[in-house]
Amino acid sequence: MSPKITTELLKQLRQVMKNPKYVQEPVQAYIVPSGDAHQSEYIAPCDCRRAFISGFDGSAGTAIVTEQHAAMWTDGRYFLQAAHQMDSNWTLMKMGLKDTPTQEDWLVSVLPEGSKVGVDPFIIPADQWKRMSKALRSAGHDLVPVKENLIDTIWTDCPQRPCKPLIMLDLSHTGVSWRDKIVALRSKMAERKVMWFVVTALDEVAWLFNLRGSDVEYNPVFFAYAVIGMNTIRLFIDGDRMMDPAVREHLQLDSTLEPEFKIQVMPYGSILSELQAVGAGLSPKEKVWLSDKASYAVTEAIPKAYRYLTPYTPICIAKAVKNAAETEGMRRAHIKDAVALCELFNWLEKEVPKGTVTEIIAADKAEEFRSQQKDFVELSFATISSTGPNGAIIHYKPVPETNRTLSVNEIYLLDSGAQYKDGTTDVTRTMHFGTPSAYEKECFTYVLKGHIAVSAAVFPNGTKGHLLDSFARSALWDCGLDYLHGTGHGVGSFLNVHEGPCGISYKTFADEPLEAGMIVSDEPGYYEDGSFGIRIENVVLVIPAETKYNFKNRGSLTFEPLTLVPIQTKMIDVNLLTEKECIWVNEYHQKCREVVGAELERQGRHEALQWLLRETEPLARVQ
Amino acid sequence: MSPKITTELLKQLRQVMKNPKYVQEPVQAYIVPSGDAHQSEYIAPCDCRRAFISGFDGSAGTAIVTEQHAAMWTDGRYFLQAAHQMDSNWTLMKMGLKDTPTQEDWLVSVLPEGSKVGVDPFIIPADQWKRMSKALRSAGHDLVPVKENLIDTIWTDCPQRPCKPLIMLDLSHTGVSWRDKIVALRSKMAERKVMWFVVTALDEVAWLFNLRGSDVEYNPVFFAYAVIGMNTIRLFIDGDRMMDPAVREHLQLDSTLEPEFKIQVMPYGSILSELQAVGAGLSPKEKVWLSDKASYAVTEAIPKAYRYLTPYTPICIAKAVKNAAETEGMRRAHIKDAVALCELFNWLEKEVPKGTVTEIIAADKAEEFRSQQKDFVELSFATISSTGPNGAIIHYKPVPETNRTLSVNEIYLLDSGAQYKDGTTDVTRTMHFGTPSAYEKECFTYVLKGHIAVSAAVFPNGTKGHLLDSFARSALWDCGLDYLHGTGHGVGSFLNVHEGPCGISYKTFADEPLEAGMIVSDEPGYYEDGSFGIRIENVVLVIPAETKYNFKNRGSLTFEPLTLVPIQTKMIDVNLLTEKECIWVNEYHQKCREVVGAELERQGRHEALQWLLRETEPLARVQ
Repeated sequence: MSPKITTELLKQLRQVMKNPKYVQEPVQAYIVPSGDAHQSEYIAPCDCRRAFISGFDGSAGTAIVTEQHAAMWTDGRYFLQAAHQMDSNWTLMKMGLKDTPTQEDWLVSVLPEGSKVGVDPFIIPADQWKRMSKALRSAGHDLVPVKENLIDTIWTDCPQRPCKPLIMLDLSHTGVSWRDKIVALRSKMAERKVMWFVVTALDEVAWLFNLRGSDVEYNPVFFAYAVIGMNTIRLFIDGDRMMDPAVREHLQLDSTLEPEFKIQVMPYGSILSELQAVGAGLSPKEKVWLSDKASYAVTEAIPKAYRYLTPYTPICIAKAVKNAAETEGMRRAHIKDAVALCELFNWLEKEVPKGTVTEIIAADKAEEFRSQQKDFVELSFATISSTGPNGAIIHYKPVPETNRTLSVNEIYLLDSGAQYKDGTTDVTRTMHFGTPSAYEKECFTYVLKGHIAVSAAVFPNGTKGHLLDSFARSALWDCGLDYLHGTGHGVGSFLNVHEGPCGISYKTFADEPLEAGMIVSDEPGYYEDGSFGIRIENVVLVIPAETKYNFKNRGSLTFEPLTLVPIQTKMIDVNLLTEKECIWVNEYHQKCREVVGAELERQGRHEALQWLLRETEPLARVQ
Repeated sequence: MSPKITTELLKQLRQVMKNPKYVQEPVQAYIVPSGDAHQSEYIAPCDCRRAFISGFDGSAGTAIVTEQHAAMWTDGRYFLQAAHQMDSNWTLMKMGLKDTPTQEDWLVSVLPEGSKVGVDPFIIPADQWKRMSKALRSAGHDLVPVKENLIDTIWTDCPQRPCKPLIMLDLSHTGVSWRDKIVALRSKMAERKVMWFVVTALDEVAWLFNLRGSDVEYNPVFFAYAVIGMNTIRLFIDGDRMMDPAVREHLQLDSTLEPEFKIQVMPYGSILSELQAVGAGLSPKEKVWLSDKASYAVTEAIPKAYRYLTPYTPICIAKAVKNAAETEGMRRAHIKDAVALCELFNWLEKEVPKGTVTEIIAADKAEEFRSQQKDFVELSFATISSTGPNGAIIHYKPVPETNRTLSVNEIYLLDSGAQYKDGTTDVTRTMHFGTPSAYEKECFTYVLKGHIAVSAAVFPNGTKGHLLDSFARSALWDCGLDYLHGTGHGVGSFLNVHEGPCGISYKTFADEPLEAGMIVSDEPGYYEDGSFGIRIENVVLVIPAETKYNFKNRGSLTFEPLTLVPIQTKMIDVNLLTEKECIWVNEYHQKCREVVGAELERQGRHEALQWLLRETEPLARVQ
């Protein structure tokens, strides 16, 4: 992978930063965050402005360009990738390391006195704007909104914003109708005494209306906003998608409904003016509920005195707790996903020794097997198919320049998942198709111990996920090892593969407590730069735990793995496992056999079934 | 313990809340925090205003009195105690429980429109003021500073502010002279480009000047502020303490020093006017460094544009990392402390069966044994001597009304510590002088497993203590048990027994990373209301750990117990321990034998030595 040459682009950007056609006054720095107007993690090609200007296309990163410098902030998952993709115009700022300055501190250190720092107000979340603006102001600088996106002005071949057809989900998938979701939302609004709720996150709009889209690759969402009043529903969406009779029927657009359930459809681009009209019409005490991560532009449309900002919206919290229909859908999706992976690994076991399987071929084969499953829609993220040293690039995606051939001498790491109409999957397995070294097995076993420590953890109701993060690291820490990413993220139900408000990471503190019905990933790892990467990831469901005692009647929780794919026992150094850990592995594999075995049988996939049975032989502890 | 009757006091307070003699406009609510003007945790009797108005005298709590209500916020350590000490005028707000409103939310829910909420600006930290003020303002209320403390106006027999002689510490105790500490501080100031540093915390003033006092019980501090410029040192302190020739010599007040080390001594009460003068004389870019926990009054004395606020001051951080002289002092102090406790437990073992030892007698006896040790100064906190159900009151202090007799049928919990001139101790042991039940042993063993999990934890450099908190709970959680307090706090070196910026608690996030040389407590517990309390506490030193590997060359840390007091093996259910845990207990006891045994021998305390030898017999694991 050769870096993108950005000298000319940066020159152009620095010119428009001074061009009165675009900026009222010249800006001495311009911030390019990675999000879109909805603060999405995964974004449409037209929104990949940070990748366009820098070459770095990981899922998280913020670029800042000044007259003299260009710097990129990203986290441990992307240190190697960013270093590979960016040319020498760019300085990589490794977030999470002690000596890395914050964006604000860095700006203050490099800017001339009294500088203006520009940013697109639609792309920067209001909370970030506030923090950044305050820090800059206290150092004598100003953060200013630049209406026209400056990257777009130099991006001559920028793709169009997508506008694809919608998918409707019925009650058997969602468990709750959109009307009932609106009723529940309004009752939360009434509790907080707010009159309006602005839905800005794409997955929240999709969830609320039981609709899905495909405007953004991997995330079944569509570009839209919604504004919910106590008696009105406005949906801001473009294109002729609302002409589809099935959509009209689903949203009951042509029915004679009670007025409070009548959806007014408006153009996507009219959100600001409509919000400003809402803001202007408010009487004292009428508040408008917004996420504090909504864009600065949307937030500013409502006068400050009328804003009610929270880190997590009521939709975000309701969406995280899956109901019975969603949970059952997720189970089905994970069984199908396991079938596809049993096929894949069986195939790889035969093909890898021939030396003809590359990372890209393996990823494509995984997609092929998944696409054979019922209700498959698309992948849920770009498959991380990595062998040997590529495995150490945490969010690696094989491209022709880096594409490596799988062999019996290297560890292979596959982190992949899919969107099925009944659920979203995300699973990582680390395999060796030859004979792993003692050191590779040792590291794998520490990672496995961490995976089990989280998966089998019992904890009181009300516990936040970040309190479980250290459990995943303890075995690695004991030997002086660690990994530079969080342990888990929330997973949507046929929605975004990363969703809030829960997760398992030392980096967060404001996560919401885990509740029965929430779904997160459990994915510790270990990465040795230049050699190999190991990660073991299951998607797990939070369930009530039976405990011997029940302190303060709080009740306890634990996890049930939804992912049911064998963990390669060849990679395990059984002597490093405790008896309990051995039992955990054997019980897990027993469940894989029963549940996935039955489905393989049903689908007539006999060879993959034989592979599953071989791979799930119980561990025997040698002592 | 009968509650304090507060009806009349609350009536008086509500009157002065409307009295134009004290308030410009009537206040509809008045906040009584627990701190003093230095945001101390332990306070002088004249500062115990919250206890005076409510009766609740725990170390943490905030009272708010409105025209209709009186409410008290406190944390899990004090739920029982506060409920016992307060009459029915008061509503107890249990912090940390899901349904407990924050002070701001509660105020908003009870106040009439457009209310004024009063508070003494010297008592409320600036960061709390800001948060509270913002929340109130957004609900249409105002937080207002009330210059005269309203509690003082109704507290007719309020004691005088103490002003006791100072203790000087030489280099053998501090390792660094006050001049060198000033030099190091100024270099930190230069790094951050600040011209002034305001020392507001009492332990920071004491540490900086290598002085100690006894103005506040248990904490060897004295009432003072300091303002350090790049070329000036101002010490604000009252009384004739500065007349003491030894103090004058220590501070070199009469020497011909370089001007930048010349200390100007000023009256304690002149801090505000002097700070305002400093503030008025600042030229642009000259910043003043303050803790964001400094009082609102002190913070407001510096114009906002000139303030540089941080959660932890450079003194707080420097003070936390103990140097060799301090560490050796702490070791000596803990050995002496262990000698005293061996004597005590040996004595209790003989006396308890006679039925004549009460909680108060046991606490006094502990103090007596400690006071026999060299360089003993005073206790480091009020001894928690509690038996049976009193043990479940987490920060219990025996008083005549609650004083219970120790017996062979109940668990006895002793949490105690002392100030020695060479160090501060804090140790909890839970003992049974008869035959513990299987359930008591089970709970004790889970607590012990948690204690060991933290003490033996290995973790990378840069890890914050809060990430270790769950290790202490895991064994309890597995059985549905837990405890409602943090696991550890920083400990001063002949200074406050609780100090920042490090600790081990799920409640904090902004703690500074643990570093070799820091000292914290490790004190998980389990409390069964109405039955018993269990806690096992050692003070531990952060030390470098040797590990098999060394990821990213970060290096690893672990803990070394400074506390060397036997953990009662009679209370341990050995079958619940892993082999590693058994070895930990045996090695710990071996070290107690060697180190404390030698000192008992040296002091000729033969009976206590025999007790120590009996209590440190190795565990034999039965399986």
